[in-house]
Amino acid sequence: MFDTTITLVGNVLTTPEWRRIPTTGTLVANFKVASTARRYDKESGQWIDGNNLRIRVVAWRRLAEGVASSITVGDPVMVQGRLYTRDWKDEGGNHRVSYEMEASAIGHDLSRGRARFFRTRTGT
Amino acid sequence: MFDTTITLVGNVLTTPEWRRIPTTGTLVANFKVASTARRYDKESGQWIDGNNLRIRVVAWRRLAEGVASSITVGDPVMVQGRLYTRDWKDEGGNHRVSYEMEASAIGHDLSRGRARFFRTRTGT
Amino acid sequence: MFDTTITLVGNVLTTPEWRRIPTTGTLVANFKVASTARRYDKESGQWIDGNNLRIRVVAWRRLAEGVASSITVGDPVMVQGRLYTRDWKDEGGNHRVSYEMEASAIGHDLSRGRARFFRTRTGT
Amino acid sequence: MFDTTITLVGNVLTTPEWRRIPTTGTLVANFKVASTARRYDKESGQWIDGNNLRIRVVAWRRLAEGVASSITVGDPVMVQGRLYTRDWKDEGGNHRVSYEMEASAIGHDLSRGRARFFRTRTGT
Repeated sequence: MFDTTITLVGNVLTTPEWRRIPTTGTLVANFKVASTARRYDKESGQWIDGNNLRIRVVAWRRLAEGVASSITVGDPVMVQGRLYTRDWKDEGGNHRVSYEMEASAIGHDLSRGRARFFRTRTGT
Repeated sequence: MFDTTITLVGNVLTTPEWRRIPTTGTLVANFKVASTARRYDKESGQWIDGNNLRIRVVAWRRLAEGVASSITVGDPVMVQGRLYTRDWKDEGGNHRVSYEMEASAIGHDLSRGRARFFRTRTGT
Repeated sequence: MFDTTITLVGNVLTTPEWRRIPTTGTLVANFKVASTARRYDKESGQWIDGNNLRIRVVAWRRLAEGVASSITVGDPVMVQGRLYTRDWKDEGGNHRVSYEMEASAIGHDLSRGRARFFRTRTGT
Repeated sequence: MFDTTITLVGNVLTTPEWRRIPTTGTLVANFKVASTARRYDKESGQWIDGNNLRIRVVAWRRLAEGVASSITVGDPVMVQGRLYTRDWKDEGGNHRVSYEMEASAIGHDLSRGRARFFRTRTGT
């Protein structure tokens, strides 16, 4: 079977946090994104808010560096990645389920502003 | 902003349930789907289970009819639809969040079997 | 970089053709799919035809078997796969470009009919 | 039926061109993007180039402004939009087919650099 890829266009809901994995030094960043669909309402002849989607985004390595240096809360962004379910226990020992995406690409949405981009110099 | 569309390929986890909305007579069906990613593990040289995604699927009208007449638990399926967050309260009054998708198309995955299809005769 | 995955919902335009690769015996099937978007026209208050997308679909191995045994021209289908450009020369030696998708999953669209599905018995 | 949405991650192949529609003053920009998949080759134990996808991207209005002010040839970008077929005649009167996407969101890929983003001030 397959990875389930999604692309989300919305706004950064929380200040990105980042840390290094102690054993490997790998950088990992995470933040929440919210997207609100707009739909045309025939009755009123107007565009109105439709469903809402909020999701936690995790980014690794070079993408985490890009996030840490470029993204702040409120930014309009687009995020592509793999969606998955994470199972965990809360303090009461109850089984809980979260949904997360591991991002493969993140960018500022140029329909809502302009950007100056500085490419990373690499050997690859 | 935009609807967030996903396509999920996996297996039907629960027997589809369906009901009619009393006021309108509209048919709505729902079931859960699970998808398990497979990834190539360089260390072992083998394909192993990766992340897991489980999600509740809601289908309306003609698609609900197709689901009610064609889908059973365990079936390999593909589902396309819009992903959204649903906010609700549990019995304790705690705020809880679920993720659902409203399907626009559902089909049996022909990489895992064969199908006889009977097209609905309609005026459209 | 990444594979570009798309999911197309539409109708089978051409009778599926299939053949075996002589050296390996691998089965490969191909057919064309067309999808026509519908959009709400504010002026007229009606849904009208929008853009059209026609694309060649290639399926391999077990998915090719499912196609060969289950799909006929005109069927409403959904197809997920990877989109790519194929460069070739026509009879005049001119450089030509086609777009194809290699399908990972194909199914009949249950919003437009019902299906009886017969799962392949396998060891996997 | 449905729009076919794709998200492409790749590089800008051509300098973006833009113009205003004379009758309405609407801004429209276009450029080409190329994406090359990478796949793990079991034989050699290395990542190698897979399929290639090149496509013409069209952007309208505020997104066209963002493109005109922010994107240059060679930039690593991600593009989301609707894919469609365009039918036309070449100089010889032969029927030709192109594939294009009308972008709904475009951004620089932060896995390959960092960005300073300046949000457009608007009433919406």
